[in-house]
Amino acid sequence: MDARENAAQAVDVTAANECAIARVLACKPRLVAVRPALEVVPGMRPELVLHAAPPAPVEELSAPLRAGIAGAAEFEGLGREQVELGAAQDHGSMAGGAGAITASTPVVVVEDESSGRRAFHFLMEGFGRSLILGMTGEDVFERLRWLRGEAAAALDVALGQLGGIDCEEIVIEALRRGDELHNRNAAATSMLAERLAPGLARAGIAAEVQERLFAFLRGNPQFFVAVSLATSKLMLDAGHGVEGSTLVTAVGANGRDCGIKVSGLGDRWFTAPAQVPEGVLMEGFGPADAGPGCGDSLLVECAGLGASVLPAAPALWPLLGVDQREAVRIHERAAQIAIAEHPRYVVPALGDRGAPVGVDLMLVVETGISPVIDIVMLHREAGRGMIGFGLTSPPMGCFEQAAEAVGARL
Amino acid sequence: MDARENAAQAVDVTAANECAIARVLACKPRLVAVRPALEVVPGMRPELVLHAAPPAPVEELSAPLRAGIAGAAEFEGLGREQVELGAAQDHGSMAGGAGAITASTPVVVVEDESSGRRAFHFLMEGFGRSLILGMTGEDVFERLRWLRGEAAAALDVALGQLGGIDCEEIVIEALRRGDELHNRNAAATSMLAERLAPGLARAGIAAEVQERLFAFLRGNPQFFVAVSLATSKLMLDAGHGVEGSTLVTAVGANGRDCGIKVSGLGDRWFTAPAQVPEGVLMEGFGPADAGPGCGDSLLVECAGLGASVLPAAPALWPLLGVDQREAVRIHERAAQIAIAEHPRYVVPALGDRGAPVGVDLMLVVETGISPVIDIVMLHREAGRGMIGFGLTSPPMGCFEQAAEAVGARL
Repeated sequence: MDARENAAQAVDVTAANECAIARVLACKPRLVAVRPALEVVPGMRPELVLHAAPPAPVEELSAPLRAGIAGAAEFEGLGREQVELGAAQDHGSMAGGAGAITASTPVVVVEDESSGRRAFHFLMEGFGRSLILGMTGEDVFERLRWLRGEAAAALDVALGQLGGIDCEEIVIEALRRGDELHNRNAAATSMLAERLAPGLARAGIAAEVQERLFAFLRGNPQFFVAVSLATSKLMLDAGHGVEGSTLVTAVGANGRDCGIKVSGLGDRWFTAPAQVPEGVLMEGFGPADAGPGCGDSLLVECAGLGASVLPAAPALWPLLGVDQREAVRIHERAAQIAIAEHPRYVVPALGDRGAPVGVDLMLVVETGISPVIDIVMLHREAGRGMIGFGLTSPPMGCFEQAAEAVGARL
Repeated sequence: MDARENAAQAVDVTAANECAIARVLACKPRLVAVRPALEVVPGMRPELVLHAAPPAPVEELSAPLRAGIAGAAEFEGLGREQVELGAAQDHGSMAGGAGAITASTPVVVVEDESSGRRAFHFLMEGFGRSLILGMTGEDVFERLRWLRGEAAAALDVALGQLGGIDCEEIVIEALRRGDELHNRNAAATSMLAERLAPGLARAGIAAEVQERLFAFLRGNPQFFVAVSLATSKLMLDAGHGVEGSTLVTAVGANGRDCGIKVSGLGDRWFTAPAQVPEGVLMEGFGPADAGPGCGDSLLVECAGLGASVLPAAPALWPLLGVDQREAVRIHERAAQIAIAEHPRYVVPALGDRGAPVGVDLMLVVETGISPVIDIVMLHREAGRGMIGFGLTSPPMGCFEQAAEAVGARL
């Protein structure tokens, strides 16, 4: 290939990435419903259990994720032999942590106002003993029965009364209120509650149901993360499938491997062993307790949120063991590998600089900078749940393989 | 006086200030009710109209404040000759901007859980055309009739159902969500709405009333400022009346003069001409349009909030024309004249450093640093309302006179 061909190709990739990112930025996410996955998730079947990407045989998943899947199947009433596995991100969906989506699981439905496309995530149970951290038991299932029964129904009917809730407006304002929308969603959750209230009133939801729901939301400041993950998926899905584009459109870790997808490279996952996050551990745990990263939430940073805008969320810094200088450094590195600055997601603490949105695979390989993700750290053994918050990155191997595939395709 | 007497006195003042600030910090503010002033404000009478301190004959108040008072009297149905004036802060109350409290005005009732003491502020109408900015007219009065009628009644009954709402918890969390609680109360207002919702449901408030109330709160992110001002008053009132203490316990500006009170100096106001704030003006206005500071809200900074914790509220910086460096500098200067760091009001962006609470009159005189206040800038003419946000300080003359009185008393 001579210099001229090289230049022509570079222009093509640039144009393809501009096209892909324009689609991402045109996305107008709206929370429109909370419905059972079987009704709304593409390709959902009664036996299917969707988990964090990349897809893998059950024996290749980590112990906590296997426990989360087994618990979800038990809650669904599926026999172990009936279960068929799939990656949530291959079904327009997201599965945070060790959580899973089964046919009856109510999911938040986030819809693009302009195109009608949709993305989904299960309702966020909260921390402590919860199925999404791979824990089971009657206490876990009792809360889940309420959340997936009475609470999900009330949320759905309230959203119907309201004609949905604008997610972008909440994300924009939450960035002005100390959230980074991955591991801090406190302001966004309050705003969601505030917006739901008139819908619940109009729908005539019983006072005692409303009281339990508002108490649950106040005790669960991460509730909005379900919407944040679905919003991130909706945004990046918009940029998928652009010929020649090197935009990273999917990323997840299944407790053993981490995988990415790329806009111009079809449905193939490029995988490598997932890193073990490093961070601030809860009392009683040591670094050797930490398991490799697990969950689809790594995608949030690729949509420009989470650690990519860490300067927006000072209350999260000590939980991750970073100070302001390091938060700014993480943001600046995210900007080095991003295709664009988001024109509407801006960070007041950075002089209204836009969130670095859309990771360019080629910039990752050229700079050696992999996206930095803030993440819940899970114990490597099943049933032990969360042990702290930390930072991780998709392994460089994912990006190197994908870059090779780009080279082969050109 | 010899050196030994001097030292003994210094110890006494230090001990008195420690006593006063301990009382301030022990305060546990709770929003318990919304009631007509006549029912709850000490010394309230049908003819009395309470305005921003310091007290003064009507002809010595600024034109916008006179307009606010005239409008409040008109709304109350008082003839001009019937009106008697008083300073809200002399009645356990606060009057922000050019607002006033008349007998029928519903006020937020903020109560100290431990002592049962109370402080009050009228409901915050919002910006735009409003009586609290000295504007009148049928549009202003229509909204006010609803706010002081249906809305106030719903808020009061909801608070009754809830047994009140913890204000300190909201302030603490709002500092983690980008508010400084003077001119940015967006997160606190959302949290208040979120906490009111189950009370409104339990009280059986009609859906259409709830819908209008939630829409009003969403459109009025400064609503919580009424609670913030009453909370500041309750805190500093707790420290008033300690013999020998040089804690500043009251401060306000009536559009012409600014005044302060001091813990150990009884009920006397020390006044001097109010400064004209400087800041960022809305389009169509110039510096010559700005009137001198007006309102009781200057007290918020003396309680450790507002500009004293400006690093907490990056979204407010551009509205005031400051950057991060200047926000930190303002905070550091506030710390130089404060008696204590608040152990619970902490700022994540400053590594959880406590808010500088309780201005020491003697430190102001010694350092030449007057508290910096972020403030709504009013037009100097009546009926023109808000022209921007800016910064101001109580004039050094107030502190110098008070320091002389301290010297005379010792």
